[in-house]
Amino acid sequence: MTNPTPTLRPCCGMTDVHTHVVPERFPAYVGKHLDARWPSTAPAHACHQHVMLAGSVYRTVSHQCWSSSVRLSDMDTTGVTRQVLSPMPELLSYWLAPEDGVAMCRFLNETIAGMVSAQPQRFVGLGAVPLQDVDAAIRELEIAVREFKLAGVEIGGNVEGTVIGDAKFSRFFAAAEQLGASIFVHPLRPSGADRLIGPAALEQVLAFPGETGLAAASLITGGTFAAHPGLRIAFSHGGGSFQALLPRLQHGWETFPVLKDKIALEPRAAARRFYYDSLVYDRATLAHLLHSFGDTQLMVGTDYPFLIMDKRPGDTLAALGLSPEVEARLHSGNAERWLGLA
Amino acid sequence: MTNPTPTLRPCCGMTDVHTHVVPERFPAYVGKHLDARWPSTAPAHACHQHVMLAGSVYRTVSHQCWSSSVRLSDMDTTGVTRQVLSPMPELLSYWLAPEDGVAMCRFLNETIAGMVSAQPQRFVGLGAVPLQDVDAAIRELEIAVREFKLAGVEIGGNVEGTVIGDAKFSRFFAAAEQLGASIFVHPLRPSGADRLIGPAALEQVLAFPGETGLAAASLITGGTFAAHPGLRIAFSHGGGSFQALLPRLQHGWETFPVLKDKIALEPRAAARRFYYDSLVYDRATLAHLLHSFGDTQLMVGTDYPFLIMDKRPGDTLAALGLSPEVEARLHSGNAERWLGLA
Repeated sequence: MTNPTPTLRPCCGMTDVHTHVVPERFPAYVGKHLDARWPSTAPAHACHQHVMLAGSVYRTVSHQCWSSSVRLSDMDTTGVTRQVLSPMPELLSYWLAPEDGVAMCRFLNETIAGMVSAQPQRFVGLGAVPLQDVDAAIRELEIAVREFKLAGVEIGGNVEGTVIGDAKFSRFFAAAEQLGASIFVHPLRPSGADRLIGPAALEQVLAFPGETGLAAASLITGGTFAAHPGLRIAFSHGGGSFQALLPRLQHGWETFPVLKDKIALEPRAAARRFYYDSLVYDRATLAHLLHSFGDTQLMVGTDYPFLIMDKRPGDTLAALGLSPEVEARLHSGNAERWLGLA
Repeated sequence: MTNPTPTLRPCCGMTDVHTHVVPERFPAYVGKHLDARWPSTAPAHACHQHVMLAGSVYRTVSHQCWSSSVRLSDMDTTGVTRQVLSPMPELLSYWLAPEDGVAMCRFLNETIAGMVSAQPQRFVGLGAVPLQDVDAAIRELEIAVREFKLAGVEIGGNVEGTVIGDAKFSRFFAAAEQLGASIFVHPLRPSGADRLIGPAALEQVLAFPGETGLAAASLITGGTFAAHPGLRIAFSHGGGSFQALLPRLQHGWETFPVLKDKIALEPRAAARRFYYDSLVYDRATLAHLLHSFGDTQLMVGTDYPFLIMDKRPGDTLAALGLSPEVEARLHSGNAERWLGLA
């Protein structure tokens, strides 16, 4: 951070599962599609650059996005021992032609793998896969895990409007289960964006949580999670609206015969096998998540280094007054299990 | 109910703000639009009939929907002293041509007013307005309140895809504020329906909450609630996902200068001036709503007489172990304030 606020709890060994990377430079576009939404960078003020997409500034980001030394310094300030690195979600590029998507994901995965291999004690990497082509996504997942040694990948809650619980993605989740790859679900191009009144920033503030909630529910109602019980999958922003949907889904499942017939897993039980980050900015909401999902499923997440980030990730957790054992789980133990490091 | 389950708390004077009415018969369509989605009824099994829309069965409903004597008997079983009657949401008919919408709303309002005037101690009425034409909606609201003596109206969270916080509806909310009309927001044709995998029942189970959450947020972010501070507005299903959106909206408002500049009301404070029903089917979630919104803003709601209804509305509240004073507020005091009966 430019002006880091010293946290009340200096170094407590947290693993921050929700941090984003933007490469310092992108390769030039060498594909064949005239209007491809391929990113590039342009100079901005000191230590910053613009991410350019389709000819305009998508977001202006700082060197925190690509500089490992800056990140490590920030981590020392906030008590984060280990960051899980994932691409800025817009870079997942599901709207590119499959061959361009492969090229972008390969580049992102190589970039993140490079950061991890230079600091293997401090960084864990999640890559990207071109889910607009499920076969290509499976191939890239294998390369990401086997060659690049990434822990897994970040995916959107939907791919060009198709929610991840759709049967077309089953083979991808089967591959993730088999490879032991960790999956981190982050909202992107959310439904509900047409219900917002106000500045563009409301998309991430108000529409992201609903997108994540519906994505999580779809893995239960569509049967994916029942078919792949070994899948280690985590949802960002505390699962978004999923905590609010869950009691109603549970009641519906108990009440509507058609839902009980078609949905193999009890929703409440399935929800306690997903993982979630803690990024809800509110003590009472975090306590409610712990009650709803269990203290074995929550992990620290901050959205570092973006404006919306939680700058004092340990404080909301500390305010809950948990036992040292439970706090240690939330700080790092659950993340290690999700990441397959335990 | 066909087989009422006796509640643990027999008669405790509850006002149930979320109950629906379907008229026993609809007038024949006399408009000029060939494919108007105008409802009719067709016989079903004993005490039931089909609501027909566009040539097929929309829903099969029982005489609980139109028979006051059946309703009163059920109310005595569940400890509900007073029901707030509102149309089955699909009947709001925003997709009809405005003149047909006026005719449908007038018919619904007359039907509900008739039920209320025969049992003024047991029923309070909410009508419908044709929000597809804001001028017509304002005229019908005046007639509903002044001539039909209804307490207010039920509205959707959106009208043909336009969320209620859009500036085009400001004049309607100004009229509601001036008339002292209570507004009950119920989801209808929700966003996110394209993210569901599974039976059609999932629309009401999973997509309704997000629609309501975004509708509530839009009244804050769009400025409607700041402009009409006297508006008495309630959200169904405990506000849906709004409780999950609120801490993130509050954090965004505190963090993004553009949001603080454009949004006049602090989201957390505004949320504590909306009303909500208690229909969340879960003790811990209800406790979280009480914490988030305050014990002056929650009211009993059941979705009587539909399949998804809460058959034991007093039990979840009783399990919270609240003081008699707070419980009385939740049972009826808050509803009386919202309805302007206090």
